[in-house]
Amino acid sequence: MNFLCEKDKLLEGISTVIKAVVSKTPMPILQGILISTDEDCIILTTNNLETGIECIIPAIVRENGSIVIGDARVFFEIIRKLPNDYISVEVDDNYHTTIKCQKSVYNIIGLNPIEFPELPIIKEKASFEINAEVLKQMIRQTLFAVSTRPEKPTLTGSLFEIDGDNLSIISLDGFRMAIRKEKIDASGNEKFIISGKTLGDIVKIIKDEDLPIKIKLTDKYVMFEYEKTKVISRLIEGDYYDYKRIIPTDFRVKTVLNLQDILVCVERTDPIVAVDILKNPIKITIDNNSLSIDCITSTGKVHDIIDIDDCGEKIEIGFNQRYLHEALQACECEEIFMEFNGSLNPCIIKPLEGDSFLFMVLPVKLSN
Amino acid sequence: MNFLCEKDKLLEGISTVIKAVVSKTPMPILQGILISTDEDCIILTTNNLETGIECIIPAIVRENGSIVIGDARVFFEIIRKLPNDYISVEVDDNYHTTIKCQKSVYNIIGLNPIEFPELPIIKEKASFEINAEVLKQMIRQTLFAVSTRPEKPTLTGSLFEIDGDNLSIISLDGFRMAIRKEKIDASGNEKFIISGKTLGDIVKIIKDEDLPIKIKLTDKYVMFEYEKTKVISRLIEGDYYDYKRIIPTDFRVKTVLNLQDILVCVERTDPIVAVDILKNPIKITIDNNSLSIDCITSTGKVHDIIDIDDCGEKIEIGFNQRYLHEALQACECEEIFMEFNGSLNPCIIKPLEGDSFLFMVLPVKLSN
Repeated sequence: MNFLCEKDKLLEGISTVIKAVVSKTPMPILQGILISTDEDCIILTTNNLETGIECIIPAIVRENGSIVIGDARVFFEIIRKLPNDYISVEVDDNYHTTIKCQKSVYNIIGLNPIEFPELPIIKEKASFEINAEVLKQMIRQTLFAVSTRPEKPTLTGSLFEIDGDNLSIISLDGFRMAIRKEKIDASGNEKFIISGKTLGDIVKIIKDEDLPIKIKLTDKYVMFEYEKTKVISRLIEGDYYDYKRIIPTDFRVKTVLNLQDILVCVERTDPIVAVDILKNPIKITIDNNSLSIDCITSTGKVHDIIDIDDCGEKIEIGFNQRYLHEALQACECEEIFMEFNGSLNPCIIKPLEGDSFLFMVLPVKLSN
Repeated sequence: MNFLCEKDKLLEGISTVIKAVVSKTPMPILQGILISTDEDCIILTTNNLETGIECIIPAIVRENGSIVIGDARVFFEIIRKLPNDYISVEVDDNYHTTIKCQKSVYNIIGLNPIEFPELPIIKEKASFEINAEVLKQMIRQTLFAVSTRPEKPTLTGSLFEIDGDNLSIISLDGFRMAIRKEKIDASGNEKFIISGKTLGDIVKIIKDEDLPIKIKLTDKYVMFEYEKTKVISRLIEGDYYDYKRIIPTDFRVKTVLNLQDILVCVERTDPIVAVDILKNPIKITIDNNSLSIDCITSTGKVHDIIDIDDCGEKIEIGFNQRYLHEALQACECEEIFMEFNGSLNPCIIKPLEGDSFLFMVLPVKLSN
């Protein structure tokens, strides 16, 4: 194998595919990057058996072939250190790999590419398109509520639900729920669960650009395709929780809040609650024209107040500070509704207009 | 105690004095900040028994007193979260401390200030003045060579040597040495050793501003004084190594190098040498018009070349990559001399003109 390739493009490709490289694996070859040549391009591939990434990079191919560079991180560092110029990569029959750029030469030993597990071939049963920035925002606004506990595997991913031309992404972990809706260019009915880990990678891989992403579905896999990059991930099998039935519809207390006001107040409890965030709830009290936040721990006490419109009823409700904070952080808008049904029922956070998001946070019993 | 103080100024003061707060200490009160009032100001003090910092902040003092806020980090976070406005701090006789700003209120319990170890009173036997930026650069350019091994306590600090109107700072650890000289506003003869830890803090505390710093000396302490801040540190006792006698004066090979050229080449060995930087030296070969750098490890090989003026003699010499890299990084200029005396003698790095710095790096035996 022998090719020439611009440093910038190669480095960008490596930094994309490296996201699927795991550091601990019983198959050491998965710590590497498969490079194979095609006409006028090379293809970089990584695969951790859950998620695989493929990236095509323009190149001058002098001799076809393929190689696995055994340590993706070392390869990334080598390319990063080279001058900003064309880089040549030459591999002999024994997988000795020579990387040259101007006067700099690296020699490393590659691995037999035959051992590298191929990515699944995607023959989609359905596909739809979505704007990259919109998809990133939708993932960002729901990913925080994905469960990290492996006991319920379906909850460690987000549910993607296509219903006509609506895409909903849903995450829930038993303590809070996040729902994010958007009209997209699709039709039909599909439900599939994508692992939170993959979604986290997707957010990092996709550039902040106004470009279309194709999402292709098979029974077992989902593929995100944009520009010269493909991310293929195994779907999580199983039925997702019937989330719709737990969304409350009536509320006794409904308040309009400036997002920054409430966010800053909740963050102000950080120094007090940090000593043990699981044991120490924060208390929200709504009374006449004020919403106050209190927290008492072994560190000390904090009390803060926001002026609100009178909402008729008094309420005292406790929350895990992190859960409320993450839901508020995900709002990404100026004003929100917070809706309550007494101190034992979940609080709902919604935009003032439309139903693009709905966050639900379960209360915590207050000790007093 | 009761005072009012601007948030910005208080936060800046805390972030200065917090540098002397240690997280692990047999005296828990040292994790705190002593606040005491004076006329129109408060004084923040921290002390880890090696180094103490004092910072004066303008304040409206309503009632004199003092308190120790037991957890400096919590205090910093509380002040950081408060709105950008005047903050009031009130302490009652039981050390209950109330911190208020606009509608936000924190209550924490402080500690009896009587337990807090006072900073030593500095009655200087000598003092001199130096520009803040110059001092920072001098420390930065020598700190890397301070020893981290406690067996030779004097080498865990830098020697400050005042000889007439010259200040030299010297660090050495048995593998390399750094000397940095500057003319300053002083006279006399003084030698003292300041701990590397304190010098690292000084670099972080001093702002990048063109302002004068007073350095005051006693037999046991040094004090850095600028604006409203004092840093007092216990000097390291003992005689410093007689460094002058190990500086070679004659060289067989002397080469002029562009600093960036050689720095980039040395950094290019990072991905190869990283697997075990102590076991794998890099080899520098000077031959006719080229200086080449080679390194072979279990990761692979790297070879790089720089064009130089012919220096008449061939030399092959091995270095610990980190030691050579840190010395080159400390040069902070465009061109340097590298001087060699065969493969068994140290290499000297100097500026093309003057003697503002001298870095010496001992060679490592090459295995081939």
